[in-house]
Amino acid sequence: MKDRAIPEATIGRLPVYLRVLVEMAEEGVATMSSGALASAAGVNSAKVRKDLSYLGSYGTRGVGYDVAYLIHQVRRELGLTQHWPVLIAGIGNLGHALANYRGFARRGFQVAALVDASPDRVGEAVAGLPVEHVDELPAIVAREGIAIGVVCTPASAAQEVTDRMVAAGIRSILNFSSAVVSVPEDVSLREVDLSLDLQILAYYEQRKAALESVGSGGGRALTPVP
Amino acid sequence: MKDRAIPEATIGRLPVYLRVLVEMAEEGVATMSSGALASAAGVNSAKVRKDLSYLGSYGTRGVGYDVAYLIHQVRRELGLTQHWPVLIAGIGNLGHALANYRGFARRGFQVAALVDASPDRVGEAVAGLPVEHVDELPAIVAREGIAIGVVCTPASAAQEVTDRMVAAGIRSILNFSSAVVSVPEDVSLREVDLSLDLQILAYYEQRKAALESVGSGGGRALTPVP
Repeated sequence: MKDRAIPEATIGRLPVYLRVLVEMAEEGVATMSSGALASAAGVNSAKVRKDLSYLGSYGTRGVGYDVAYLIHQVRRELGLTQHWPVLIAGIGNLGHALANYRGFARRGFQVAALVDASPDRVGEAVAGLPVEHVDELPAIVAREGIAIGVVCTPASAAQEVTDRMVAAGIRSILNFSSAVVSVPEDVSLREVDLSLDLQILAYYEQRKAALESVGSGGGRALTPVP
Repeated sequence: MKDRAIPEATIGRLPVYLRVLVEMAEEGVATMSSGALASAAGVNSAKVRKDLSYLGSYGTRGVGYDVAYLIHQVRRELGLTQHWPVLIAGIGNLGHALANYRGFARRGFQVAALVDASPDRVGEAVAGLPVEHVDELPAIVAREGIAIGVVCTPASAAQEVTDRMVAAGIRSILNFSSAVVSVPEDVSLREVDLSLDLQILAYYEQRKAALESVGSGGGRALTPVP
């Protein structure tokens, strides 16, 4: 039973560490130093060590972290050893793409149901699941034990479908629409901004251009700054 | 001319601050305290003040930050006052969704070209643009001055299209495919993990369940931990 809080910034970095660790494990790497993990994750190594210390993981001096064990610890901490049935609302292009996204299942998220408001889409099979009508939300949530709802509707429908998810008992919502939505205090909400990484790339692109204009050359733009 | 580096973690938070500030501006809010910005962005207020100090922005004691001016400063720092023509490769469901994503244009990213390897897709109009063949990449990059390439192909094609983007002169690449790709040292690469926010939600969902099981109630799960 967990009763301590890990800083939100650390929680935000755990999926990034997990991604790197899983890649390393797939390449057959058994141990990894905090420096190598830091470099691959784009943070400094003191931060990696601090973050992992919240999991009770300290590595071994001169050896590093056991990759397989650290994967287990991060997955356990994030709750990815549990089963998280996900519902996607709004089966347009983005909904289709997310229903078929392999990265979800790989992280323990099973897309268990799809809903749409358009009668034309209802009954269509997407990623092996039938699209159901959004009016069925309460029954679907109960039937599948939905833990997380993903909003992929057009911006104009986002608040309404969010309200319907909350009314149906969903307490964690991921909003991919470009609309800002609000939820009651006891519901967790994350807004996904698909342009966020483009903005970060723009910063480095601009910086490379500025550095080149003073003749100091390029250099690897994404090297973490200590 | 810029010649100083801002920590990578700060760069990663600037788009989050920008999103909050733009929402506030749209609601008619003229000034905002570091505490309010911190709370909306999910970090602590000391970090907000530190981050913004890198932009030379310190706010006014008892008043806060001027929202419109801070938006200008963040946009300028991120390079969003420039014009960033973007090319999307792979016009399946995700490519379609991104081509139509309003959040890009709103942040200064203009989707200027679409390419696909399938002859069936070439010539189709998506988001007002014709899909062109990936073999045309070098000509398209030169014609549109493409700054950033977005990989939306299936995993199996991701490395090849990345290599072709690099050969055509693109130096900043955003990879939405679930494959890991590699690029030369002088090319900036960001991998987008669409399951990242789901993992963070899973953590809070698990934590809520644990807290409720000891009878200490719910509480707002996404409140930043100081």
